[in-house]
Amino acid sequence: MPPEEFLVHGRHILEWISEYLGSDGRYPVLAQVRPGEVRASLAPSPPWEGEAFEQILRDFEEQVVPGLTHWNHPGFLAYFANTASSPAILGDLLATAVNANAMIWKTSPAATEVEGVTADWLRQLLGLPGDFAGFINDTASHNTLYALAAARARAFPEAGEDGLHSLPAGRIYASEHVHSSIDKAVVTLGLGRRGVRHLPADGSYRMKPKALRAAIEEDLAAGVRPVAVVAVAGTTSIASIDPLPEIADICREHGIWMHVDAAYAGVAGIVRELRPLLAGWERADSIVLNAHKWLFTPMDCALLYCRRPEALADAFSLVPPYLRTREADEARDLMNYGVALGRSFRALKLWFVLRYFGGRGLAERLREHCRLARRFAGWVQSSDRWQLMASTLLGLVVFRYRDPGLGPDRTDLANERILDAVNASGEVFLSHTVLEGRYVLRLSVGNLRTRHEHVERAWRRLELEAARLG
Amino acid sequence: MPPEEFLVHGRHILEWISEYLGSDGRYPVLAQVRPGEVRASLAPSPPWEGEAFEQILRDFEEQVVPGLTHWNHPGFLAYFANTASSPAILGDLLATAVNANAMIWKTSPAATEVEGVTADWLRQLLGLPGDFAGFINDTASHNTLYALAAARARAFPEAGEDGLHSLPAGRIYASEHVHSSIDKAVVTLGLGRRGVRHLPADGSYRMKPKALRAAIEEDLAAGVRPVAVVAVAGTTSIASIDPLPEIADICREHGIWMHVDAAYAGVAGIVRELRPLLAGWERADSIVLNAHKWLFTPMDCALLYCRRPEALADAFSLVPPYLRTREADEARDLMNYGVALGRSFRALKLWFVLRYFGGRGLAERLREHCRLARRFAGWVQSSDRWQLMASTLLGLVVFRYRDPGLGPDRTDLANERILDAVNASGEVFLSHTVLEGRYVLRLSVGNLRTRHEHVERAWRRLELEAARLG
Repeated sequence: MPPEEFLVHGRHILEWISEYLGSDGRYPVLAQVRPGEVRASLAPSPPWEGEAFEQILRDFEEQVVPGLTHWNHPGFLAYFANTASSPAILGDLLATAVNANAMIWKTSPAATEVEGVTADWLRQLLGLPGDFAGFINDTASHNTLYALAAARARAFPEAGEDGLHSLPAGRIYASEHVHSSIDKAVVTLGLGRRGVRHLPADGSYRMKPKALRAAIEEDLAAGVRPVAVVAVAGTTSIASIDPLPEIADICREHGIWMHVDAAYAGVAGIVRELRPLLAGWERADSIVLNAHKWLFTPMDCALLYCRRPEALADAFSLVPPYLRTREADEARDLMNYGVALGRSFRALKLWFVLRYFGGRGLAERLREHCRLARRFAGWVQSSDRWQLMASTLLGLVVFRYRDPGLGPDRTDLANERILDAVNASGEVFLSHTVLEGRYVLRLSVGNLRTRHEHVERAWRRLELEAARLG
Repeated sequence: MPPEEFLVHGRHILEWISEYLGSDGRYPVLAQVRPGEVRASLAPSPPWEGEAFEQILRDFEEQVVPGLTHWNHPGFLAYFANTASSPAILGDLLATAVNANAMIWKTSPAATEVEGVTADWLRQLLGLPGDFAGFINDTASHNTLYALAAARARAFPEAGEDGLHSLPAGRIYASEHVHSSIDKAVVTLGLGRRGVRHLPADGSYRMKPKALRAAIEEDLAAGVRPVAVVAVAGTTSIASIDPLPEIADICREHGIWMHVDAAYAGVAGIVRELRPLLAGWERADSIVLNAHKWLFTPMDCALLYCRRPEALADAFSLVPPYLRTREADEARDLMNYGVALGRSFRALKLWFVLRYFGGRGLAERLREHCRLARRFAGWVQSSDRWQLMASTLLGLVVFRYRDPGLGPDRTDLANERILDAVNASGEVFLSHTVLEGRYVLRLSVGNLRTRHEHVERAWRRLELEAARLG
């Protein structure tokens, strides 16, 4: 593509993005297409002759955009809301253009070192100790796999050479509210679905330390080897936080790897008054935390903090430990700390975000999101028709429509209908979860551009649809 | 960031990129910094107050760029050369801005369906049969892990529930020239380094079918369970291609999963006269192929073709098979076919590439790269000072400086010195490998902007540095 053309099309795209980012209301948040509709609109076969870029862009707008669920919309209040912020979009554009690959230090020293520095800057903002080494990978799921692989390497040093087949069973402990990526990682690592023990939680959806201790002792007595305890800081359903100090005590006592899944809530450590919620995580062996969730950075940007990077190398370096030379921190070959060999320059967009907003700018925005969530929770609490289903610690509100005249099953159905109708409006998008067998609604404030009006809009819509039920 | 600012900075970045992409000679291809130099130039702590975007950009240019190895430079002839082409950069910019997540169909129908269509278009261009389902993940390494996890699920159906600990040992077979990502995947899966059997290759660096058959039979007799055979189409060192039809026969005979690592060479299937090199791969159970290598698409964009997608679901879905409902192709929840839950919209940039270049445009460029490589190989062959170390099937030339007066060890050293001097020039960047214990050089033509003059420049530089030795 000649440079003039690149500039013309690029400018057009920038204008499209600028309008897109400001276009509150132009697009329904949740895509309103049927399965197969997008596919059917596309040619069944690729073109043999190249096409004009204008045509490709037109098709993007007409065929692709209507089929998108708009994660970057301020009315996106589902799952854990996230953002592609402007500085991050521009930083990522540069990363894509230079196409750096930080597989080994030499193949892009700056990509390797900026990754180290950026992860360390964030560590400082979070108040984590300096002995955590930070790595940036694509997803929390892969980071969890890497961390638990390191834990497995420590629990079963012989497995790296010989495999697991002649060893005792291994176990990972987590509460029943742990994210499915833990189970996936454990199955991938060859420990099987039974390799995870899901412990019943307390009334606040937190792991019970007593139950953890009992499970470990029972397993030890039965010859099952503990591999890791996964504590969650911000469960997927309700953002509850496991009792981290007690879990850390048990892990230390038994010499078990402590992993903290802080994919959502970890960034709250930037906000001084929220940091106490995370107390105890600084004693973990590994922590997973997503910048592409609540830190205004587009996918993919997931951090893995590990205070035993040599255990990651034990898990993934193909050179046996006794032959390995310790790399200087500066010239670390990052491919040796995970599965992926190719490593794109994901740190750059986060470096842009940390600099553009600054620690204060990030903290203020996170604080404001929590304030909006509390305000919404207040509306819920002050209404007879609704009830809060969990406390609102951060930016997530878990609630449920109630009608004493309906039994629990019909109340489930009513909530499902309300949610479907609210989402079909296209104005906002909320999600649901199941708590103690009951269908409950979730409103997650986390998009940079979500303001009071969006949360209010969600509330009005919910009220309207609830009224229609009656 | 206000829209006007976004547009101003965005335009500035586009101009920088446009100049960057045309700036042959402005930057040394291989970064010329010392370990720690970039890190030392950056602030040790993050800013608490946000900074001006102009300052961030200036620091990117002054602190980051000098530390980059320029993968997108036409003089990049190392490893397997790749490209962030202009249409792909622009397509990816849109993907970043919309920040779509194709974890389940509903969370971005278009991202899910465009991924399916794009992978299928490429399948058609490659001439692979229609029963291969295509998935786009970040790296070949993760795709390999996923494919071998599916093979493991087939070989050990009980492992998903119970883990590997009470099962027989499992084995994956590959030639000694297989990529290290295979070993990494096998270790991650809990089969241990011994879970891979590296078979000695023939004189053309290809797997020997007889050796494969013997190894399988020996293992079966010893109670070791075959899991998969990994055949390589384009080895990392020399781009040799294993005898795929014979390997397919053996796999069928024993009912073993056949995986083809075509990370580099797979895209050659687009070129009609090269496609016969890949004959036999259409019988594989799974194929890995990188669009971010030789298909003008920036990282991350790695394809996984699998004709048993249900085996991927067996490996990664947390719902036991008997409870699972088969998803319609259109509404597939892609998170169930790999480890990662979050799935960014990687297909979009490849969709842009396939449309902008068209099948013919891609084929012509790949053909031209092969022609340039053959021309370089011709220069090597016609010189007394140099020798070809492997045949040049595609865009890679493997060669070595020779001097009958030096013994093999001193010749190794001479080659190493020549390479270091050539790379220190900053004009081009070549890499090396070790073949039969000997240090040999590699020149890989694969960047979209590499022309005759760059290959000639590499040759002159090599000749110059070789002459300086004497």
